[in-house]
Amino acid sequence: MTENRAACQTRVVAYQGAAGAFSHEAAGILTRAVMPEDEIAYSNCQSFAEVFDAVENSTNYGVVPLENSSVGSIVANYDLLWSGRVTLVAETFLPIHHQLIAHKKAKLTDIKTVMSHPVALDQCRRLFKENPQIKLENWWDTGGAVEQVATSGDTTIAAIGSAFAARHYKLAILKENVEDFPHNTTRFGLIVKAKQAPEPPAHLKPLKLSLAFELPHKPGALSSVLAVMSASRLNLTKIESRPAPETPWHYRFFIDVELQDRELAETVIDQLDMICNRLLVLGIYPCI
Amino acid sequence: MTENRAACQTRVVAYQGAAGAFSHEAAGILTRAVMPEDEIAYSNCQSFAEVFDAVENSTNYGVVPLENSSVGSIVANYDLLWSGRVTLVAETFLPIHHQLIAHKKAKLTDIKTVMSHPVALDQCRRLFKENPQIKLENWWDTGGAVEQVATSGDTTIAAIGSAFAARHYKLAILKENVEDFPHNTTRFGLIVKAKQAPEPPAHLKPLKLSLAFELPHKPGALSSVLAVMSASRLNLTKIESRPAPETPWHYRFFIDVELQDRELAETVIDQLDMICNRLLVLGIYPCI
Repeated sequence: MTENRAACQTRVVAYQGAAGAFSHEAAGILTRAVMPEDEIAYSNCQSFAEVFDAVENSTNYGVVPLENSSVGSIVANYDLLWSGRVTLVAETFLPIHHQLIAHKKAKLTDIKTVMSHPVALDQCRRLFKENPQIKLENWWDTGGAVEQVATSGDTTIAAIGSAFAARHYKLAILKENVEDFPHNTTRFGLIVKAKQAPEPPAHLKPLKLSLAFELPHKPGALSSVLAVMSASRLNLTKIESRPAPETPWHYRFFIDVELQDRELAETVIDQLDMICNRLLVLGIYPCI
Repeated sequence: MTENRAACQTRVVAYQGAAGAFSHEAAGILTRAVMPEDEIAYSNCQSFAEVFDAVENSTNYGVVPLENSSVGSIVANYDLLWSGRVTLVAETFLPIHHQLIAHKKAKLTDIKTVMSHPVALDQCRRLFKENPQIKLENWWDTGGAVEQVATSGDTTIAAIGSAFAARHYKLAILKENVEDFPHNTTRFGLIVKAKQAPEPPAHLKPLKLSLAFELPHKPGALSSVLAVMSASRLNLTKIESRPAPETPWHYRFFIDVELQDRELAETVIDQLDMICNRLLVLGIYPCI
């Protein structure tokens, strides 16, 4: 009986934003790939910090954006990863296309107001230059803006959001792919409470190893770290320095490497531990 | 006669945004430090790409944000630096404090609308949560929003912008430092047309060397680059990988190192030239 209950247990995934947000879509993609087809429940958070708190204290999983091809790393989430409270267990790359979403009877020429997250509005300037009669209204996330259109019943308002959000709220897409730059992609990470990371299903490859570390303040320290990677013939896919906010002139580094072999990760980690002042293994995980 | 005219010649500095933008303030700080006290004229651009075009074709200088402590690198400008059309000749770090700016007779309780750049509005959420009667209106830059308040004569509207913008438009600060996170700093760069960089005044130290490069796609290539830096005992202050948008699986790297000696830069550059597929010297410049 207990085993049966466990097998049918609901797993809760926290993400930032309202239902229909890009994080919601990413959460669906990531969780369906790494857990059995149990019932997945979602928990909305107002901020990224709340997602990390939820994963530590109440939910099974969390999903957060890590980097975007147009704006680079989401440094707020890298700063939160540095706390060491969570572990990355999967990543996925989601293309970001913005849709102009309204009620099925709405027409573009009738739209007076468009609402969305300010960054999403900022990525659709061409649409608003071509339609100067449209007033813009900020909403704290794209999903919430689409929800507002859905609940209002008003055919003169529209929202900028994803096709996923339009389907979720059963609304129409008035104009497709209205983003100024079409090749916009966001990388999302699936996180669990630290040291509770399950082994990923064996068929999910390749693996990535994500590390964060601080180094002794002397020339050559980073060079020694990369020499370890090089000796193990590991390919870097990301390297980034980040000033440590509380310690001037100290830097943290975030590194991702491609990995074919989990055992190699352990050898590398042992060697880096001797070089770094603080070494955090953010995760060893597959790309979904 | 000709020499006199040259000495009094106006130098034009391009920046993105309207008068009063943070870039305008940074442009004043940077140009006053590196050029004689000639008359400085400003040229406003709509986008960062237009600033780079202006520097290449018509103006003497340009000023662009390079990175911000809260959001990381302004990757659009790093992508534009990669074109090799400009050279960095100075940098400065500007603290970003947001002010609620309105007419001198305006009162906070009378304010119905606050306008600003969407990212600036997004950084002042606490103010808007405490004053839910306020409607937000997007403007494409903070300087333009403050200008709009100034020209409207309306005491029920306010803008989010800098103290510099309030002074520039002779408006009042209704509430000081309304940003949610107080330690927000942006690093700005002064750029000139490539290969036209003047020697910086000798008293301006320390120097920084900024490099961008692509590497052969094999393990250890980045390690070789850092070994060159390490052998010359150069301290890194920034390292960042950036996927090359047009070539999947290829990465560019951006590196800054502290430099005491211009001649050392030449030795290092010669050595790196043999390792890198493409090496760009973005600049050797002082911090103002």
